[in-house]
Amino acid sequence: MSSTFGTLLKVSTFGESHCKGVGAILDGCPPGMKLSEADIQPQLDRRKPGQSKLTTDRKESDQVTIFSGVEKGVTLGTPIGLFVPNKDQRPGDYKEMSQTPRPSHADFTYQMKYGIRAASGGGRSSARETIGRVAAGAIAEKMLKEIYKVEIIAWVSTVFDISASAVDALRITREIVDSNLIRCPDMEAAKKMEALVVRVKEKKDSVGGIVSCVCRNLPAGWGEPVFDKMEAGLAQAMLSIPATKGFEIGSGFAGTRLKGSEHNDSFVAVDGRLGTVTNNSGGIQGGISNGEPVVFRVAFKPPATIGIEQQTVDFSGNPVTLAAKGRHDPCVVPRAVPIIEAMAALVLGDLALRQRYREHN
Amino acid sequence: MSSTFGTLLKVSTFGESHCKGVGAILDGCPPGMKLSEADIQPQLDRRKPGQSKLTTDRKESDQVTIFSGVEKGVTLGTPIGLFVPNKDQRPGDYKEMSQTPRPSHADFTYQMKYGIRAASGGGRSSARETIGRVAAGAIAEKMLKEIYKVEIIAWVSTVFDISASAVDALRITREIVDSNLIRCPDMEAAKKMEALVVRVKEKKDSVGGIVSCVCRNLPAGWGEPVFDKMEAGLAQAMLSIPATKGFEIGSGFAGTRLKGSEHNDSFVAVDGRLGTVTNNSGGIQGGISNGEPVVFRVAFKPPATIGIEQQTVDFSGNPVTLAAKGRHDPCVVPRAVPIIEAMAALVLGDLALRQRYREHN
Amino acid sequence: MSSTFGTLLKVSTFGESHCKGVGAILDGCPPGMKLSEADIQPQLDRRKPGQSKLTTDRKESDQVTIFSGVEKGVTLGTPIGLFVPNKDQRPGDYKEMSQTPRPSHADFTYQMKYGIRAASGGGRSSARETIGRVAAGAIAEKMLKEIYKVEIIAWVSTVFDISASAVDALRITREIVDSNLIRCPDMEAAKKMEALVVRVKEKKDSVGGIVSCVCRNLPAGWGEPVFDKMEAGLAQAMLSIPATKGFEIGSGFAGTRLKGSEHNDSFVAVDGRLGTVTNNSGGIQGGISNGEPVVFRVAFKPPATIGIEQQTVDFSGNPVTLAAKGRHDPCVVPRAVPIIEAMAALVLGDLALRQRYREHN
Amino acid sequence: MSSTFGTLLKVSTFGESHCKGVGAILDGCPPGMKLSEADIQPQLDRRKPGQSKLTTDRKESDQVTIFSGVEKGVTLGTPIGLFVPNKDQRPGDYKEMSQTPRPSHADFTYQMKYGIRAASGGGRSSARETIGRVAAGAIAEKMLKEIYKVEIIAWVSTVFDISASAVDALRITREIVDSNLIRCPDMEAAKKMEALVVRVKEKKDSVGGIVSCVCRNLPAGWGEPVFDKMEAGLAQAMLSIPATKGFEIGSGFAGTRLKGSEHNDSFVAVDGRLGTVTNNSGGIQGGISNGEPVVFRVAFKPPATIGIEQQTVDFSGNPVTLAAKGRHDPCVVPRAVPIIEAMAALVLGDLALRQRYREHN
Repeated sequence: MSSTFGTLLKVSTFGESHCKGVGAILDGCPPGMKLSEADIQPQLDRRKPGQSKLTTDRKESDQVTIFSGVEKGVTLGTPIGLFVPNKDQRPGDYKEMSQTPRPSHADFTYQMKYGIRAASGGGRSSARETIGRVAAGAIAEKMLKEIYKVEIIAWVSTVFDISASAVDALRITREIVDSNLIRCPDMEAAKKMEALVVRVKEKKDSVGGIVSCVCRNLPAGWGEPVFDKMEAGLAQAMLSIPATKGFEIGSGFAGTRLKGSEHNDSFVAVDGRLGTVTNNSGGIQGGISNGEPVVFRVAFKPPATIGIEQQTVDFSGNPVTLAAKGRHDPCVVPRAVPIIEAMAALVLGDLALRQRYREHN
Repeated sequence: MSSTFGTLLKVSTFGESHCKGVGAILDGCPPGMKLSEADIQPQLDRRKPGQSKLTTDRKESDQVTIFSGVEKGVTLGTPIGLFVPNKDQRPGDYKEMSQTPRPSHADFTYQMKYGIRAASGGGRSSARETIGRVAAGAIAEKMLKEIYKVEIIAWVSTVFDISASAVDALRITREIVDSNLIRCPDMEAAKKMEALVVRVKEKKDSVGGIVSCVCRNLPAGWGEPVFDKMEAGLAQAMLSIPATKGFEIGSGFAGTRLKGSEHNDSFVAVDGRLGTVTNNSGGIQGGISNGEPVVFRVAFKPPATIGIEQQTVDFSGNPVTLAAKGRHDPCVVPRAVPIIEAMAALVLGDLALRQRYREHN
Repeated sequence: MSSTFGTLLKVSTFGESHCKGVGAILDGCPPGMKLSEADIQPQLDRRKPGQSKLTTDRKESDQVTIFSGVEKGVTLGTPIGLFVPNKDQRPGDYKEMSQTPRPSHADFTYQMKYGIRAASGGGRSSARETIGRVAAGAIAEKMLKEIYKVEIIAWVSTVFDISASAVDALRITREIVDSNLIRCPDMEAAKKMEALVVRVKEKKDSVGGIVSCVCRNLPAGWGEPVFDKMEAGLAQAMLSIPATKGFEIGSGFAGTRLKGSEHNDSFVAVDGRLGTVTNNSGGIQGGISNGEPVVFRVAFKPPATIGIEQQTVDFSGNPVTLAAKGRHDPCVVPRAVPIIEAMAALVLGDLALRQRYREHN
Repeated sequence: MSSTFGTLLKVSTFGESHCKGVGAILDGCPPGMKLSEADIQPQLDRRKPGQSKLTTDRKESDQVTIFSGVEKGVTLGTPIGLFVPNKDQRPGDYKEMSQTPRPSHADFTYQMKYGIRAASGGGRSSARETIGRVAAGAIAEKMLKEIYKVEIIAWVSTVFDISASAVDALRITREIVDSNLIRCPDMEAAKKMEALVVRVKEKKDSVGGIVSCVCRNLPAGWGEPVFDKMEAGLAQAMLSIPATKGFEIGSGFAGTRLKGSEHNDSFVAVDGRLGTVTNNSGGIQGGISNGEPVVFRVAFKPPATIGIEQQTVDFSGNPVTLAAKGRHDPCVVPRAVPIIEAMAALVLGDLALRQRYREHN
C-alpha cells in the first residue's frame, strides 16, 4: 500500500531523486473528461525547483507526459500513466553521505529499514517524489471542479515568526496567492517573509512555516465514517508530505481553549439549505462534510539540508563535521502550496466518488 | 474501508450507540500469544463512562467477550471477534433531535449522507464506537509489548487554558497518569484541571484539551514510505477519533518557528547504535522510526453536547432553542487517553508486522 | 485482508468450529433498506448441518442475531454486525488429531503456518466459517434484488458420475431447486444422486460434485478491469469456499474445444438493447457484464473426513491407521448451494456499487 | 483496486493498445536484489507478438525500461517503475468497430460501462495490457527463485482437441517447453498442435486450449485463510487474464468423480518432513501450501478476433456482416505461457512475503 493511496480514485507513485524519472498512475478517474498535459503542467510549474530566488537552484523543467488512459484529449476511465524525467542530477553532491547520515534526513532510517539506500540519500523521501502526486492531483482537481465546482486554494500563512493576517478564505484565489513569490495573500507580510527567506538563504540556514488551505463548494455528505473520516484522510495525506509536522482542521489546537458554548456552530437557514453561523468545525462534522468551507493548516519544519556546519557522527559513530553541498530550499512552504492542493484534491476526489454511489437512493 | 483499518494487523469495528452492542474483529494478530478478556478489560474500564465525577453519568459496565481466535487462552493467528453489549440506553433522551440537528454534532451530516440516521443522532460518530478500537488496541499493545517491549503512554497535557509542565516522556508511566482523575501527571495542574471541569459541568458547558502520547522502545525501521509514513498513519488514526481537531508530531507547530540549525537532530553514538541529541523529529525521519521515542499531541474540541440553551434551526430551517438532555462529558480528554493509546498501538502494530518480513534480509 | 473481502461492499468474517460463535461484519450496505433476521435466516437454514439424511448429523440451529447497523427494521448504511453462536460442540471427537494430521485436511498446513492450531483441526478452514458469508451474502442478495431485480440461483448439476440434464438457466427457481434433498432440478438425476449419497454415507466414504449457478437481470457494465474482472472476482470467491477445486464461466473448459467461429456470441437487437444469440461468454466480456445471464460452475472434491480407515503418518512421521470419528457430510454439494449464492451476491453487490458512481455521467 | 493487485507485493498496471505505451509499478520488492532489464526481457520476448508463424503478425520489440527502484543494478526496496512503448500501431484497422461491437470482444461492454471506449476497442481488455504483468511477474519470479528456489513452469497441455500426454510436472523445464513453437512438452502432440494452428490461421478462424502450470519448491505455510487462500488468489489471477474461461487446481473437475477414500492425500515421511503419497490437493490444503508441487490448469477460449465473416448487429441494432481486419492470434496459448507464469509469481510472491512476518515466531 505504501506508495498507493485511495479507494475508488487511486494514485500509485514511483521514482527517486536520481533515477530515470518519477511519475504516477491515477486509476478511477471518470471517463469522458477532457484532459491533456496542459491541464497538469501549471501545478508542476508551481512546484518545480529553481522557480525563484526563494527556492533551490536545482533546475528541472519537470515536463509531464501522459502515457495512457486518454485518447483524442478525453479520458477513457482507464488508468492514466504520468511521467516526468529527472534531468539535472548531480549525484556527486551526495558523496559525503555515503559515510554520514545527514541530521533530520531519512538517510539513517532508510538504511535501517532496507539495509540499503539510494546514493542521493533517503530515496522516496526526496521532494521529487511529490511530482507524481502533483500531476495526479491536478487531474483530481479538474474532475472536482467540473463535476462539483469545488475550488481548492492553499497559501502560505506563516514563515518562521511572520504570520499573515486577515485572509478571507471565502474570496481568496490562486491568482492572489501567486501575486508574490512567497505565495502569501497578505502583501505586507509577504514582503517581510521574502526578505527573511533571502536572509536565511544567505546564512545557509533554513526556516519553517505554515500553509493554510480552503476547499470550497463541497456538498454535504462527503467523508466515510469511521477510519476514513474526511479530516482523517486529509491528516494522513498532509502528514505524508515530506517535512510536515502538524495538521489542524477548523478551530484546531486553538479550539481547545474554547468552551462548547463558544465553539458550537449553530445552524442557520441559507439559500434553502442549512448552513452554520460560525465554522469552528472546519466544514466537517462526524467526519462528513456539512457544506461549509473545509479549512485546514499544515506545519512544515525548517528544511534539514543546510549549508551551516553541523556536529554529528558517521554510521560508525565517529564525530564528523557536516556541511551540505547539495542544492536545497531555505524554506519549503512556497513550493508546498501546490502539493497540499494536490493531496487535498486526491482525498476529496476519492470521497466524492465513494459518496456518488449513494446518491441514487 | 471506512470501518476497517490496517494492512497486516487489520481491525474492523461495528456498532452504534443504541443497538445491541459494539465490537470489532482484529485480524492478523500473531499466533501463540497468551490472551484473555482480562488483558483487554483494563483499558475498557479506563475508557468507560461514569467512571468518575468528571465524566458522563451514563452507566455501562462495558464487559468484553472474546468470540473467536483464542483457544485455551492462546491466540490461533485467526480473526479475534470482540463484543461489548450496550446496556444503559435511553433513546428517549434524543427525542428532540428527530426535528433539530444538534450544533457541531453529526446529526445533520449523517442525514445528508445517508438520508437516514440513528435515533440517537450521529450513529457511528458516537463515542461508543471507540469501544471496538480500545478492545482491539489492547491486543495490539500486548503484542508490541511482548515482542518488542514497546510502551505506549498517553496523558492529558492541557485542559482549556491549564497546561501541565515538566512531563518527562522518558519516565512517565500509566500508574502516574492514573494517579488522578483527569489523568495529568503534573499534580498541581491536575488539581486545577479537575476543579475547572467540575465547574464547567455545573454550568452545563464543556471544554477542550490536549492529550500527549509517547511510544518508547521502537526499533529503527518501522513505517512505510510514501503514504503510510508512520506520522501519516498516526495522523489518520488520531483524526479518526471523535472530537479531534489537530495532530502534531515532535516539534509540531512550534517547530515552524525554529531555524534548521536549531531544529536538526544531530546524531550521536549511544550504546552501540546511533541516537540523536535532540528529538524535534519526534522519533520519525522520512516516515520511518529512528529508534528515539515517538512523541505526538492531539487536540480535542469541547464536547458539542451541552446543557446550555443554544439558538439554532431545525431541519426545516425554523428557529429553535435547544438544550441537550442526553448525558454527556464536560471534557473528553481523560477518557480519550486509552483511545489514543489504542489507536497508536494499532498503527504501530501494523507497521511492525509490515517491517518484519524485511528483517530476514 | 485474509478474512475481509470487497471494496465498497465489504465483508469481514470471524470464528472457528469450536469457539463461542461465528459471524461477520458487512460494511457498505446502502441505507434505507428494510432488513431483519428473517431476511437472513432462510439461507442459513439451507446451509445448516443436520437438515437431512444427506448431511452431517451435527445439530446446530444457527440462529442469527443482527448486532448493529439496523434500526426499526431499516438499514442505517453503517456496518451490520452478524452473529451465530456455536452450540453442538464435541471437541472430544477430535482427540486423535492432536497427534495425526488428517489427510487432505488443513491440520498439517495450519500447524506449519501458525505453529499452533485449533483443537478441532483446521480452524478457519472449518465449514462453519461459511456461516458469516451466508449471512452477509443474504443481505447483499436482498440489496441486488430490490435495486436491480437480480436473481441468483445455484443448483447441484453433478454428484460423482451422475449429471443433471436439461436445466433451463433462464427459468430455474429456488423452489424447484429445493424440491428435493440433493437440490438438483432434474428430478430423475436427483433420485439417483440421493441414493448414491445414502449408499456412500453407509460405506463411511464420500463423493464430490459440481454446483452450477446463474445470475439473471444484471445490467451491462458491472465488473472492473483489470484484476477485478467479474469472472476473476467470482473465481476468487468460489475457490475461497472450502473443498472447491475448480471454476468455469460460460463455455468453460469445454469451450477450449470450439473454434472462434463457433464460440463467438453474435449480437442481436432485443427489446431495444443489444443481446447475444449464444452465451458462451457466460454473460461477461472483457471482465464486464453484457446483460446476458452470468453462468458458472464450481467443482467440489469429496469431503476429506471419512470413516473408512486410512493409512497415513502422525506429525512425527510414524505410521498410523486413522478413521474419523467426527460427524461429517458424505457430499457437500447440497449445502454448498446457498454458500455459492452468497459469495456470488457479495461479488456482484460490490461490483454493482462500484459501477454506480459512474452512472451519473 | 481494479488495476492494482497484491497486498505486500503490489503491482499496478496501465496502458491500452494504442496509447504511448504500457507498463507497471511493482511495489514491495525486497531491497538488495540484483536486477536489470535483462532479467525481465526474456519473458517479454516469450510473450511478444510476431515471434513465430503461430502468432499475430503485429510487430513489437517490447523493450522494457526500468524507471526507478533500482540503483547500480540493485533493488532499493522502493517502487519499481516499468515501461514498454507501443510502436506498431495501426488504429486504421479498427475503423469498422466504431459502429459495430465485435462479437465476444469487450467493445460493447466497455461502451456500456464507460460511455466511451478506445478506438482500438476494448481498451484495457487488450492483450497488450498483460505486458505490465509479465514485466512485474518476472521480478517476482526472480525474488521467489533467489530466496526460496521456487520454480514456476507453465506449458500448453491442450490445443482444441489435441492433448499432451505424459508430462512429468516434477521434471519439466522451461527449456523443454520452449523446444517447440507451441510450447508443449509432448513433442508428438506439439507437432499436431502446430499443424492445426497453421491450418486454422489459414482459414481465418481460431481455436482454444489449456495451459498447465506447476510451482515447485514452495515451503509449507503460504496462503492466507479465508478469502486469500492460495487457490483463490491463483483463480482470481488466472481469470483476470484475457480470454480465460476456467481454472482448476489439483484434481480439479475430474476430482469430483472420485470418492474420498481415493481422493485423500495420505501423509508420508519424506526427508525429515511430511509429504503426501498422492497430490490430488494440488499442493494446497485449507488454502495453504503443504510443500508439494502446486499444479493448476487454465482454459482459454478461441480468440474472438477472426477473419471469417460473422453475422451480427451494429450499436443501433442493424444487421452487419463483420470480418476482422486487425492482426490477431489464431490461438493464444503459446503466448499465454509466460503470462500465466507471471501471474503465478505475483500471487506466490505476495503470499510469501505475507507469511514471512510469521516466521519469526
